[in-house]
Amino acid sequence: MSRERLYLFDTTLRDGQQTSGIDFSVDEKIAIADLLERLGVDYVEGGYPGANPTDTAFFAEKRTKKAAFTAFGMTKRAGRSVSNDPGIQGLLEAEADAICFVAKSWDYHVRVALETTNEENLVSIRDSVIAAREAGREPLVDCEHFFDGYKANRDYALACAREAYEAGARWVVLCDTNGGTMPGEVRRIVEDVQSVVPGSYLGIHAHDDTGQAVANSLVAVEAGCRQIQGTLNGIGERCGNANLTSLIPTLMLKAPYSEMLEVGISEEGLRDISAISHAFDELINLSPDVHAPYVGANAFATKAGIHASALLKEPETYEHIPPETVGNRRRVLVSDQAGKSNLLNELTRIGIEVDRKDPRLDGLLTDIKEREAQGYSYEAADASFELLARRRLGEVPVYFDVKSFRVMVERRFNAIGELVTVSEAVVKVDIDGETRMSVAEGNGPVNALDIALRKDLGRYQTAIDGMELIDFKVRILNGGTDAVTRVLIESQDRATHKRWFTIGVSGNIVDASFQALVDSVTYALLKAGA
Amino acid sequence: MSRERLYLFDTTLRDGQQTSGIDFSVDEKIAIADLLERLGVDYVEGGYPGANPTDTAFFAEKRTKKAAFTAFGMTKRAGRSVSNDPGIQGLLEAEADAICFVAKSWDYHVRVALETTNEENLVSIRDSVIAAREAGREPLVDCEHFFDGYKANRDYALACAREAYEAGARWVVLCDTNGGTMPGEVRRIVEDVQSVVPGSYLGIHAHDDTGQAVANSLVAVEAGCRQIQGTLNGIGERCGNANLTSLIPTLMLKAPYSEMLEVGISEEGLRDISAISHAFDELINLSPDVHAPYVGANAFATKAGIHASALLKEPETYEHIPPETVGNRRRVLVSDQAGKSNLLNELTRIGIEVDRKDPRLDGLLTDIKEREAQGYSYEAADASFELLARRRLGEVPVYFDVKSFRVMVERRFNAIGELVTVSEAVVKVDIDGETRMSVAEGNGPVNALDIALRKDLGRYQTAIDGMELIDFKVRILNGGTDAVTRVLIESQDRATHKRWFTIGVSGNIVDASFQALVDSVTYALLKAGA
Repeated sequence: MSRERLYLFDTTLRDGQQTSGIDFSVDEKIAIADLLERLGVDYVEGGYPGANPTDTAFFAEKRTKKAAFTAFGMTKRAGRSVSNDPGIQGLLEAEADAICFVAKSWDYHVRVALETTNEENLVSIRDSVIAAREAGREPLVDCEHFFDGYKANRDYALACAREAYEAGARWVVLCDTNGGTMPGEVRRIVEDVQSVVPGSYLGIHAHDDTGQAVANSLVAVEAGCRQIQGTLNGIGERCGNANLTSLIPTLMLKAPYSEMLEVGISEEGLRDISAISHAFDELINLSPDVHAPYVGANAFATKAGIHASALLKEPETYEHIPPETVGNRRRVLVSDQAGKSNLLNELTRIGIEVDRKDPRLDGLLTDIKEREAQGYSYEAADASFELLARRRLGEVPVYFDVKSFRVMVERRFNAIGELVTVSEAVVKVDIDGETRMSVAEGNGPVNALDIALRKDLGRYQTAIDGMELIDFKVRILNGGTDAVTRVLIESQDRATHKRWFTIGVSGNIVDASFQALVDSVTYALLKAGA
Repeated sequence: MSRERLYLFDTTLRDGQQTSGIDFSVDEKIAIADLLERLGVDYVEGGYPGANPTDTAFFAEKRTKKAAFTAFGMTKRAGRSVSNDPGIQGLLEAEADAICFVAKSWDYHVRVALETTNEENLVSIRDSVIAAREAGREPLVDCEHFFDGYKANRDYALACAREAYEAGARWVVLCDTNGGTMPGEVRRIVEDVQSVVPGSYLGIHAHDDTGQAVANSLVAVEAGCRQIQGTLNGIGERCGNANLTSLIPTLMLKAPYSEMLEVGISEEGLRDISAISHAFDELINLSPDVHAPYVGANAFATKAGIHASALLKEPETYEHIPPETVGNRRRVLVSDQAGKSNLLNELTRIGIEVDRKDPRLDGLLTDIKEREAQGYSYEAADASFELLARRRLGEVPVYFDVKSFRVMVERRFNAIGELVTVSEAVVKVDIDGETRMSVAEGNGPVNALDIALRKDLGRYQTAIDGMELIDFKVRILNGGTDAVTRVLIESQDRATHKRWFTIGVSGNIVDASFQALVDSVTYALLKAGA
């Protein structure tokens, strides 16, 4: 049986921009559009040209090659013609393949928000759709508040949908704008709407206010919709939009969807989805949700010792899909609950072979438990974990010995009367019995320490010349006076782009940072075979 | 029509403990059990007595008054009697009202993980349930891997469920252990199971691996299940368990659930759910998910200027439920996209009345936009926002003027040869034309600066004596050399327990912290009417 085509419409750059704390620049929008192209969605909604300078600039040229580049805007204002409506003219001037008009479909909002009549609103829908078609753009209509509108006045909500369809809209999108509709209602209403618009012209736009945006999208598809609107990682106003990074794997890997429908994403695109999800978080500077379905670092992670050993026997019976299909991987967590099975598995993963009966394993387990009790967490600090393990196995030379460090941050007026902040660090290390002192200034105390530490490591200098600190994360583990600070540092080799993560924990943030810096340098030396 | 009773079973302390990075102490378990009692769930599953010292100690006494205190454990081992199975005996000795046995119901796992026969597994289920009943405990059976087991061998999965029911289990819980089952399958399978177990004896235990744990739980209830298992904030292994903080409001506020079912949570419990959710995050030291359904800080937040003004006209048409019913509130975000409506609304909320036409509003909007472009975010820093606004309105006196500060962190060997880290800060301020210098040591640089800054503020000293810094959060906004650090400080008045949040942003972490400290002290002085 041939599968029907399901279209994916991404609105990360438009509805996703409503997320609190998010405000994309033009460059960020370009970078995100590239990610969406890599993924392979059918539509990229880029914003609202004419509404603000960023979106106008973004629509000065077409930003996608494969996906339909889509501009968003309001339908024509009541009481004026399309050619006299600057909003519509701005939309038509945008370099877009498609235009998605948002239209009121709840009679209450027509009256209160638009302050016009039901009939005028239908005219606005019709004229806007026709104007887009005449300008050679594919028209879509987002029926705002459709489900609430349907429950308040079914006939009028259906009239809006029909008007859009009959005027020539390629898609009539049913929006659960307030996000409170239950899956059962979505199914019933989508079925009913098909009395006026065929399912192959219907889209669903769901919000996650009850934690069911994904389920509502799938139920709408089961009921006949053939377009889903959503965002990367489910960002969006309030509780977010339908999460495309959850929906896409389900649509491609799970019955009945995979059997009845075809999407425009390739298997390569699917394998890239974890990387795309993380790259997007990096762009918007959010910590990735480790518990995210399919793409989260813990989506295929097992902690319990008892499960872990069974899992290693026959992993596929403990995993709902093979992690590799979505570019993720199985993780058996090294944790306070860790048994030897977990530990052995992690050691194998980083290339350390130890016999199960080796007594040093017990010592290592004790080390890990003690350090986790202090606040260390090796789940995200592979390099520090490897150092800890190899130290127990006697495989890490003492390259250098830090005798002391000192860092000073001073805010004062400089000679010409400007207020400046200066950070200066001094590090004293012993190498091969010889003491070396280095001093450096930096943007902040950690930067100064990093530069001073790596300034003169004698015969090891060449082995660390190519490394750089690329990210730095701080987490306060307890509040108040007992606060313990955990610092995670990401480093990279400039030549190979290989990255590694190290950790430090202390009541003192500078101390914690310095520990992570020392681990990072030591790891680089170890890998360089120094 | 009388509504049927639906039971809520919380497994935060047992399955929630499988979350990576979470490992509850006995004290934490006690505090969380208290939260669950406040909420009003029917069952509190506390852990696995006998499996580890923490859980054994936790079950040394009964920890709940209203909820059934439930111990979790495996069914009897094959080939030995109940009285010869130390695991079962440990369970029976626990001070519990109920025992929840986990039983295999997938024949594959019976063979591979238990290494026994299908018939022996049924015997284990039966004997375990009977032993619990005879010991005066209410027996429950979690059918592990039920949905995958059903799809592999329907007859055997049903035989396990039937065996548990016929042996006298109060609940037979269908577990989607791997979390990959779709709502449509859940519905079909739950309906079929009722050929052997009545719905009023069936529970559902869903995981969120496809983002549908909430939807799967609801669909199971529609199909007849009368118990839902879940966790606070949806914590749990991999992608987490069904989120009770999302499910409870939906069950109580949304048709058809609210019409057909009754839960044991009161309206007061429901109004407490946002506070309970946040208190739980605080206990486990996680940042609350601001986008969480119902309870997230942004669950009822609006950003767009255009929406905001309509929202203020008739809020209920933009909100799927009244935020107060779940103890949350409407938020109109001050943000880069802010229009005057948003800003006025926020000013009113913090008690500042300004005329819409006041030209200082435009200046304030510009201030906010400029600062947000630098990395400030006032959404979580009310006190800094209030200071910014009142400064524009000329209402904040210059209490003190910081001329300079200096902080030093040194790690070295002390006189008796111990490696110590010392943090020392010097702060120089002008007050009423007089210069004061203070010096202090602290646990870390920020602590030292905090103490030094508040050590001698002259005539203002009494107004700040009661304040203390209680939390400190650090976020790095860009990676690499352009890194900007945002520091958020939470302060409190020891007497009134009133808390306030201030923010600082700088390329230098110490600088950013100092800004937030100065705002915090200034805010305290302003509120004290100094």
